[in-house]
Order: sequence, then C-alpha cells, then structure tokens
Amino acid sequence: MTAPLALAVDFGGTKVEAALVDDGGRLVPGSRARRGTGADAASAALDRAVAEVVRHALRAMPEQTAPVGVGIGSAGPLDLAAGTVSPLNVPAWRRHPLVDRVAGLVPDVPVTLALDGLCIALAEHWVGAGRGARNLLGMVVSTGVGGGLVLDGRPAPGPTGNAGHIGHVEVGGADDPCACGGSGCLEAVASGPGTVRWARAHGFTGTTGHDLARAHAAGDPIALAAVDRAGTAIGRAIASAAGLVDLDVAAVGGGFSRVSPALLEAARAALARRSAFDFVRRTRIVPSGLSDAGPLIGAAALVHLARRSD
Amino acid sequence: MTAPLALAVDFGGTKVEAALVDDGGRLVPGSRARRGTGADAASAALDRAVAEVVRHALRAMPEQTAPVGVGIGSAGPLDLAAGTVSPLNVPAWRRHPLVDRVAGLVPDVPVTLALDGLCIALAEHWVGAGRGARNLLGMVVSTGVGGGLVLDGRPAPGPTGNAGHIGHVEVGGADDPCACGGSGCLEAVASGPGTVRWARAHGFTGTTGHDLARAHAAGDPIALAAVDRAGTAIGRAIASAAGLVDLDVAAVGGGFSRVSPALLEAARAALARRSAFDFVRRTRIVPSGLSDAGPLIGAAALVHLARRSD
Repeated sequence: MTAPLALAVDFGGTKVEAALVDDGGRLVPGSRARRGTGADAASAALDRAVAEVVRHALRAMPEQTAPVGVGIGSAGPLDLAAGTVSPLNVPAWRRHPLVDRVAGLVPDVPVTLALDGLCIALAEHWVGAGRGARNLLGMVVSTGVGGGLVLDGRPAPGPTGNAGHIGHVEVGGADDPCACGGSGCLEAVASGPGTVRWARAHGFTGTTGHDLARAHAAGDPIALAAVDRAGTAIGRAIASAAGLVDLDVAAVGGGFSRVSPALLEAARAALARRSAFDFVRRTRIVPSGLSDAGPLIGAAALVHLARRSD
Repeated sequence: MTAPLALAVDFGGTKVEAALVDDGGRLVPGSRARRGTGADAASAALDRAVAEVVRHALRAMPEQTAPVGVGIGSAGPLDLAAGTVSPLNVPAWRRHPLVDRVAGLVPDVPVTLALDGLCIALAEHWVGAGRGARNLLGMVVSTGVGGGLVLDGRPAPGPTGNAGHIGHVEVGGADDPCACGGSGCLEAVASGPGTVRWARAHGFTGTTGHDLARAHAAGDPIALAAVDRAGTAIGRAIASAAGLVDLDVAAVGGGFSRVSPALLEAARAALARRSAFDFVRRTRIVPSGLSDAGPLIGAAALVHLARRSD
C-alpha cells in the first residue's frame, strides 16, 4: 500500500501552485505545477489557472487512486463558512467560491480551505523552524505581509478563518496608509514595496527589493536605514502579537525577509526593548525553515494533520 | 447538598479582594473582603492583605465544608509554571510565589492561577457581555489597560499564562513611552493616567479621570479631543487584535472605560475604517456586562468551568 497523498493548492496574488504531498511533508516528484495570477487577471482566467495546476498534479497520482483530501491555502481575506475567498490583491475575486470550484475538479474528495498564512504556520510547525513550539506565528514578508497562528499546538483559524493577519497589526509611531483602510499597519511599513517606497521618499533611486538588497550589501546609508526601519517594525509587531497571544516562536519567511540578515537582527533588537516583559522577550524570531514549497506543504498539512487527530 | 463553592481571589495594583462564588457565578453574601495594595507596599504587608481577605471569605463557608477549588486572578506578568507573579505596578513582588502562599491558607484544595485579564474575559464569556461568543477579548481600561482572550470558546492563557496583554499592543502613529520598555503601547496612550497626561500637555488643568469625565460632559474641547484620542487608540488596538486572532466581541470594562460613551463610539469608528476587512469590522465593541465583582467571578470561573469540562 502506498502512502496517503494530499492534493495541495496554494493560491496567491502572483501565482497559483498545486502538488501532491505525502504524509511526511514531501512533494511527489513531477506533480508540482505553477501558473501566474496577478491583480489584472479576469476571474475566468484565474479559474482556468487553478484547473490547470490541479489537473497537472492529479496526473501524478498512482493509477486507480485518489488523494485522501485536498488542502487549499489562499491569500485572504476568506470566508470559511461560505468556502469563498476575496484576496486583497486579486480584485477579480470577491467572495469567489474557490472550494466549490476545486471540489468540482476532484469529485468525492474532501476539500479544506485555510488562509495561506495559516498554511505557512502549520508547515513551520510540522517540518520547519517551529517544530515542538506550543504557540507559533508563521510570517511571510514579501509583496505583502501575511501570517498564521498555531496556538496550543493546534491551527488557530478563528471563526471566519482569517486569524493570523499580522500584516495588519499596527506599528507604534508609523502612520503609512494601508490598503485595508487603516494606517501604520505592518504590511504598509515593512513589505518589500512599502520599504522601497520609504527608501525612495528618502532619495533611494532603485525600484525593487532586489535593488534594495544590493544597495544594502554595498553599505548605502538609505538602504541601511530602510531595512532597519522595516526590521524594527517587524519586531514591534511581533512584540504586540507576543503580548496578545504569548508566542514561543515567530518564523519569518518570504522573499523580502531575505533582503539582509540585518532585517531580523533589527526585529530582535526591537523585541528586546520590552524589558519589563520576559514573556515577550523570550519569543524567538527565526528565519523560516521551509523551502519555497512551504505553502504547498502547509496546504497538505490541513489534510494530513486532521487525519492524524481523527 | 449545597452548590459547589469556589474561593476567588483577585490581586491587583490597588487592591486585593476575595469572595466565595457559586457555580452560577453568584457571590456568597458576606464572603467578600477587600484590602489595599499599592506600589509602595512591602512584600510581607501584601501577603498579610491576601491572607486577611482569604480568611474572611472562608469564614462564610458552611460548617465542615471546603471550597472545591481556589481561583486566583493576578495583575501580570506571571509565570504559570512556577506559580509566581510579578505585577508591573507592584514592585515589591517579583516572581512572588502567590500560588504557594494561598495554598498554605487553604490546605488540600487545588489552586489555579491566571492573569486578571483572562479572568475578566472568562467572566464576560460566562455571565457577561460575551455569552455565546466563540472568540472574545475581555478588556479593562483603568489605571492600566489589561485583557484576556477566550478563543474557540476556551480560555487562551498561552504557554506562560500571559496572553491577553492588549495594553501592550502598539497603536499606529503613537509613540508615547511605556513602562514595559516599548512605546506607542495602548496602555501608554489610552489608560486613565495616559489620557490625562496627554490632556494636561495640551492645556487641561485637571488631574484625574473623574476631572476629565466632568470636563468632557461640559463640552471642554481638550477633554473631547483627549477622549477621542483614547477611544480611537482602543479601536485601533482592537482592530490589530481582530486581524491577528479573528474576534467576535471585544467587551470593554474598567473605571476609565466609563469616562463617556464617546470613548467606545470613537473605538467603533476606528474599527470601521478597516474597510477592506469585513472580518475585522464585524467585531462588536461592547461595554462590559459585569458588575464590579467581574474579576472575582472570573477567578471563580477558573474553578467551575474546569470542573464542567472534566
């Protein structure tokens, strides 16, 4: 008998991926596929992209077998009860019935939806940098800032499935306007685009996170200040989160999290400033322990971990 | 057979109280006692105050019976594993073995410790404004700002017992220095003393929250602005918390929460600004449904609710 396989789907603002993942968190070779998404895509084109990656992954199933379940991680917000998603950076999808669409592609297999940030957190807890933690925040610092929570060793999606939006925890002293309608949100301050925006307002001439990484490595003072500001904001938001839910670990991944080791060093320094609160300062801020397949592994965790606890 | 009774103890920065509480959340008449505490009290005097209120409450027990358990709510931070408390505003107690001290007064009865904010949250969920909520934040806005979380219908103390420190969630745009070592914390901005401090810096001549309430009622423009600033900060911190843990209800009590209905109106307006996030805006901000015995009822909930789920 072969190991049980989950079909994992990760839907985000720039791409959708699917793969088969076994119950040890390993991808089945040849099963992974990827298509672009993007803010300008029409709804039907996005549905087609999802169908293509799902069909590609399913072709890697052994003959006459089906996945034991489908796990979908999606950019938020979402509505768990309705099975719909409304990704902030994908305007064509508002209350889009993603669960029904995927279920139609994989008949008679249960489909579980979660915020992509929760999938990341589950993957860090299962096979990444947060193994053994009781309370963990998984974070992605990239085009946006997202996350998810494992509390008391279990996924904590919240009543609507949207818990873990660390990108919309505010940062003291910051008033950068945010797409959510608020201001001073971590995402507005410390995402790749947010950090580049601040640097450009202070004279930086590059336009991307990669430009900023190169300038930082070369010792450019504006780039140094910009990365320090972003890292400090990340540490302050983690301190707020640790005060609120009592965290063992914050595992930070995503493209912009690798702009420089100075980013997480600044975050740790900001956390250390909570001198009166040992329980906040004890939170370990660590780089993600996941490969770029982390979101897929996390989507598969929705299936495999639920089977374990049955 | 009489109803099971819990001995409830509430230890805070200004007073300690104890009472007997039945399994419906009702105080036993004549059992409640109170002593002052305060930042200047010596450790032995604080121990004596605790012993006096505990002994007073125990005298109300029916002959030949003992409480089924002792629940202690304490100002934080605390260390659940060690059974010690280090209340920020009570410098004489650092890692003070409060559980052992109380256990010595009530032999052979199990003692449970929790953050006072968690007790408030449990009481709101049990008999207050949060009945039926799945995810609830209980808040106290007073000399400080504290709180606690009920998540998925259960107490969420966190690994060290300190979850719920909403007073140390930062507020975007604010940089008021905080006793925790951070800045821009909700407690620094929106506590009674924090709000009075801001008003005085803008020309207000009163010195207390009561002065501010009177000036607000009389339409004093500085008092109006100060209460609006505090309420807005409360709403922004609740928005951050709702983004992070996905809240149904935030129930707000404490002396300064009653400075004016305008306080929670400003909080609701700040929450409504998260226009892109239905799941944040759906959070209901409501006044506490508890009497001034709420902290004692919550401490008793530690005992009675644990017995129910056994």
